[in-house]
Amino acid sequence: MNKNSSQSIENLDGLPPFLSAYREILDVSLREAVSEKLSYTATPIEYHMGWSNSSGNPIKSTKGKRLRPALMLFACLSLGGKIESVLPPAVAIELVHNFSLIHDDIEDRDIQRHNRPTVWSIWGEPKAIHLGSILYDLAFLQMKKARGIPPERLIYASSRLSESSFEMMKGQYLDISFEGRAKASTKEYIEMIAFKTASLIACALDIGVFIGTGNCKLAASLALIGRQIGQLFQIRDDILGIWGDVQSTGKPVGADIRRKKKSFPIVYAMEVANKSSAVNLNYIFSKPLLDDRDVEKVLDTLDNTNAKSQSEATTQQIASRILKQVERAKLPSNFRIEIKELVDFLVTRAR
Amino acid sequence: MNKNSSQSIENLDGLPPFLSAYREILDVSLREAVSEKLSYTATPIEYHMGWSNSSGNPIKSTKGKRLRPALMLFACLSLGGKIESVLPPAVAIELVHNFSLIHDDIEDRDIQRHNRPTVWSIWGEPKAIHLGSILYDLAFLQMKKARGIPPERLIYASSRLSESSFEMMKGQYLDISFEGRAKASTKEYIEMIAFKTASLIACALDIGVFIGTGNCKLAASLALIGRQIGQLFQIRDDILGIWGDVQSTGKPVGADIRRKKKSFPIVYAMEVANKSSAVNLNYIFSKPLLDDRDVEKVLDTLDNTNAKSQSEATTQQIASRILKQVERAKLPSNFRIEIKELVDFLVTRAR
Repeated sequence: MNKNSSQSIENLDGLPPFLSAYREILDVSLREAVSEKLSYTATPIEYHMGWSNSSGNPIKSTKGKRLRPALMLFACLSLGGKIESVLPPAVAIELVHNFSLIHDDIEDRDIQRHNRPTVWSIWGEPKAIHLGSILYDLAFLQMKKARGIPPERLIYASSRLSESSFEMMKGQYLDISFEGRAKASTKEYIEMIAFKTASLIACALDIGVFIGTGNCKLAASLALIGRQIGQLFQIRDDILGIWGDVQSTGKPVGADIRRKKKSFPIVYAMEVANKSSAVNLNYIFSKPLLDDRDVEKVLDTLDNTNAKSQSEATTQQIASRILKQVERAKLPSNFRIEIKELVDFLVTRAR
Repeated sequence: MNKNSSQSIENLDGLPPFLSAYREILDVSLREAVSEKLSYTATPIEYHMGWSNSSGNPIKSTKGKRLRPALMLFACLSLGGKIESVLPPAVAIELVHNFSLIHDDIEDRDIQRHNRPTVWSIWGEPKAIHLGSILYDLAFLQMKKARGIPPERLIYASSRLSESSFEMMKGQYLDISFEGRAKASTKEYIEMIAFKTASLIACALDIGVFIGTGNCKLAASLALIGRQIGQLFQIRDDILGIWGDVQSTGKPVGADIRRKKKSFPIVYAMEVANKSSAVNLNYIFSKPLLDDRDVEKVLDTLDNTNAKSQSEATTQQIASRILKQVERAKLPSNFRIEIKELVDFLVTRAR
């Protein structure tokens, strides 16, 4: 086995090894949480989680990074916390994330996610609304399973999870109104994704640190770092949503343009383009459906404004800021090294 | 002012005075909880809660019994608990209830609730899904505001609220599959509503008692009583949904029949009717839309099977069972007297 193929196996879930190491224990615990309560509606949940096809037959799962729970486990265990204290909230945060995916797909009328039909497009909306809400509830049901920590840490974790879910939902709501606006700045966009995408990532580090140490100052500084990791993650996602390799991302070139997603590169181009290009972009994004020519025109404007390299430069700037803050935080050296590894990975990832 | 008009003012919210007494403090706290977090989407929430019209202008609210939080406050305060300990979870349970109403209306495609257009029918589905989920999240955000109780009681309360929400949602799901079945027994129906309707009512008493006393045995016995109060409440609702006075209930006679709701009287009639009537009932309920003649035919079959008096007899049986259990429970005499008053009220209420 050459180095490349071994790497591609290690990175099946698209995370650096220090995080993907948690994948198996997370999947076992997630399956336990689901099977304990959701036997009456197992197939759509197992399908959504990437464990089965739509008939309920097991598949070899390669879906889902489990980024949030892996970050929580990493933060807690690196700082001396115990697995039995952090595994339940880690399962909880992944369930909250998946609740939001199921409902977002309904709200955005998306019929595909990771190259597979979405839950609502197979089982219908009423059932999909139910499945999303029940996953959300299941998340909070996990919390009381945490062992070996004072009750105050559990209350802190539950409360942070509710607050971060609130921010995430509010961000999703702002995103919808964002899509409808003719003018929006990259500054506003970065603020919006601080809620929509970064809330749960910040929450993962926050809860992980607090469960592991009970140190709320350290938890808050890691939450701040997590917030920026989330923003970086989203902008890289936006780049891949337009220029990513179809084999790696499962999306054709320009996929997010066709979906009329006003992602970072688009907002950037609208901000810096000359007036006629900006008007034209807005006109295209106001059409009910985009054809190949529309997508090409948008790609041309992105080229002319250097939107790709500018988006990449933005992720680089966020990355440098994160690394400075990591240096300053009172963290063990292996913790610092691994956060750096994650940041390097997030800036360059192709899937 | 004669006795009747005074009674009708006292019963504006359709509850006996010992429960409606909590209405004002609950409404103030609910408004605080909403305005603190949901200013970005205030109008649809205020509309749904019965505080404003769909343009956001305040209206004189007569909507919503606030049964669940009133029961929780009553149970806690009657047993020596403090208002600052129980008000946050009471607000939370009402928010969970309202989350379920918003999502149920989408799932059931109901365009009216209490004579007013439903949230999704005004603001569309994506927004209504968001609003429901955000109310649910807001519920759990309330919990940490509870003051003056040991953290263990708070963890118990949060955990019971998640579990009961789970049961409620599962019950709603079972209800949908119930509607699709050709044959179902009253026994199965009573089991289904033990989840769908009775979970949150049981939870209200459970949390109220535990927050007030820390006595989990007493909390469990009140939860059992609450479960049956919930079943009684639902069957009375079912009776009113078919034979209720339009002025009181806001629904025309036979409203639930037209909606093809397989409520208790229908399930009872299907169970006892002769074969040809049962086949006919099933045929009518399998039609996509029912006309006036269909509704009359169903009403005839209900008459022929004494479905109304048998449904009333069922509520009487549940009421007697509750009263026996209340006698046996170790409760102060005023607590017992007021639960009896509630049960009498629920058996006879006309709205």
